[in-house]
Amino acid sequence: MKTNSGLGEREIIKIIQSHLDSMPRMPIQFGDDVSAYDLGNGKLAVLKADMLVGLTDVPPGMSLWQAARKAVVMNISDFAAKGVKPLTLLVSLGLPANISREEVKEIGKGLNAGAREYGAYVIGGDTGESTDLIISISLFGLAEKANLVLRSGAQPNDIVAVTGSFGKTAAGLRILLKKAKSPEALRKSLIESVLMPHARLEEGLALSLSQTASASIDSSDGLAWSLHEIARASKVGFLIDKLPVAEEAIRFATLNRLDASDLALYGGEEYEVVVTVKSKFWKKAEKAVEDAGGKLIRIGKVTKERQVLLKTEGKARAIEPHGYEHFKTSEQ
Amino acid sequence: MKTNSGLGEREIIKIIQSHLDSMPRMPIQFGDDVSAYDLGNGKLAVLKADMLVGLTDVPPGMSLWQAARKAVVMNISDFAAKGVKPLTLLVSLGLPANISREEVKEIGKGLNAGAREYGAYVIGGDTGESTDLIISISLFGLAEKANLVLRSGAQPNDIVAVTGSFGKTAAGLRILLKKAKSPEALRKSLIESVLMPHARLEEGLALSLSQTASASIDSSDGLAWSLHEIARASKVGFLIDKLPVAEEAIRFATLNRLDASDLALYGGEEYEVVVTVKSKFWKKAEKAVEDAGGKLIRIGKVTKERQVLLKTEGKARAIEPHGYEHFKTSEQ
Repeated sequence: MKTNSGLGEREIIKIIQSHLDSMPRMPIQFGDDVSAYDLGNGKLAVLKADMLVGLTDVPPGMSLWQAARKAVVMNISDFAAKGVKPLTLLVSLGLPANISREEVKEIGKGLNAGAREYGAYVIGGDTGESTDLIISISLFGLAEKANLVLRSGAQPNDIVAVTGSFGKTAAGLRILLKKAKSPEALRKSLIESVLMPHARLEEGLALSLSQTASASIDSSDGLAWSLHEIARASKVGFLIDKLPVAEEAIRFATLNRLDASDLALYGGEEYEVVVTVKSKFWKKAEKAVEDAGGKLIRIGKVTKERQVLLKTEGKARAIEPHGYEHFKTSEQ
Repeated sequence: MKTNSGLGEREIIKIIQSHLDSMPRMPIQFGDDVSAYDLGNGKLAVLKADMLVGLTDVPPGMSLWQAARKAVVMNISDFAAKGVKPLTLLVSLGLPANISREEVKEIGKGLNAGAREYGAYVIGGDTGESTDLIISISLFGLAEKANLVLRSGAQPNDIVAVTGSFGKTAAGLRILLKKAKSPEALRKSLIESVLMPHARLEEGLALSLSQTASASIDSSDGLAWSLHEIARASKVGFLIDKLPVAEEAIRFATLNRLDASDLALYGGEEYEVVVTVKSKFWKKAEKAVEDAGGKLIRIGKVTKERQVLLKTEGKARAIEPHGYEHFKTSEQ
């Protein structure tokens, strides 16, 4: 978001944080994917809350079932990036007065589907009236302190990798929001990536258990932003030499005269895990993720120089710290 | 809320619940004040989420600092009713695009004030754009399973008691929303009860520790509703013979030709604890709450007959199962 007075999301969070007392011995600092409370004996209670707002998070074409499921998935993705299994979730719903019984049913089913897909249960919540549709989720899970992967542990020469290719959601959103053109089969696949996102929970759990990752983040704000976030938190830089652009994004970009790299870097709502791994652990990490049914794609390395660069055809150019800016359906 | 198609808040929650898989061995069933996850060894992780919506929960005259603080207090009150100390809270904010830096600061300060007042810390959260102001809070705490007081344990002949008198917020809301008349000193006190609510955390913790309560609920939906909720969950009834009407509510009712009992029964946004106690534990419960700096006011007893009755001057009349319906500022 950007307020009328020009405040961005991150600036708002900064202002709020500056007025909060810090809990002593906070196991995870502000600004990581999740929060935690130290239970003692090396165990953490892991907590995450994030809300889906109809105005900015539900593109045209997304059903209420899909919106409710997505609200769950976007929270689970943060647990995935930290390697934490979600156990329970609570839901606070804000519903417009014109909602029907059938629509409420769809929301209930979508919430349950999202939770059960990842082994979690909805165990409580509340509801009230609001102008927008609001689906606010809070997740709870347990973790071994030693296995938790933060944003801040990347070191020079670590390998940086991702759990999937990028660019499909950026293309899909252009179709849904701006009626960009695309042949039917491609269109279907791109839209599907937006309407039915998946969190990389198995991959994240496998990485955490294998204790091979030095830093990790979920990519929901876009690949470029995720890299800059790890860079900032770990005080390092990146040299990306193999941008993981989805084949469908390349086809879409060609058809619409767009830069496929931009779709992959500056999109968003793409729930991959971006992870750094020490070279000597690479094989082990790769195997752990493969055994979990996924794949780990090497895209570059961590550098001492605090820049985030993309190297193509021998030339290096800067990857901008653009975050994904939530769309508004009113801008269609 | 009541949707255009006539769905009430409780009906919506019922529809949602009917589509959720139940977690095996759920320590607290749906529909109590809080939810929980069993940590083993007699310990529970206790969780609660509820959101404040500008449209329905922020009356005219309430500052953003007060609204943010209230969002925290209304969640803490549910922990208070269960005798659970809140440890951490997460905040999801939905902010209108016209919000200013100064207003964001106020929200941050109000959140922190609410949390620190009850010994808890804000440890994370997120923000986005929404049409209404949305402050969604999720609380986490730890409890001994044996000390948790549910809604379902009341038994015939138990004493029913409350931690404070009722009716001030109903009067205060009539002043703020409907410009009801009142002399200045009284006006100030009534409005204060709405703008600066307090959760009865010390009282709730003391009751839980003393292991004297058989059932308990927070009264945020009104005294009448709270009694009916315990009655429903415990399969009992109530005979109330001493309605705890605040002296200020009586004065306000007289001035405005209202029924003071109605203000006390069918108001809301009043964060007392309503508790049932076995007669033989009454002295101990009373002392525990007094030692915590509060008071326990006996208002009647639990009955086998499943009716909720008010006895005045020898006659008994039914207390209606009216819940507190959230006001809309647009109805001013």
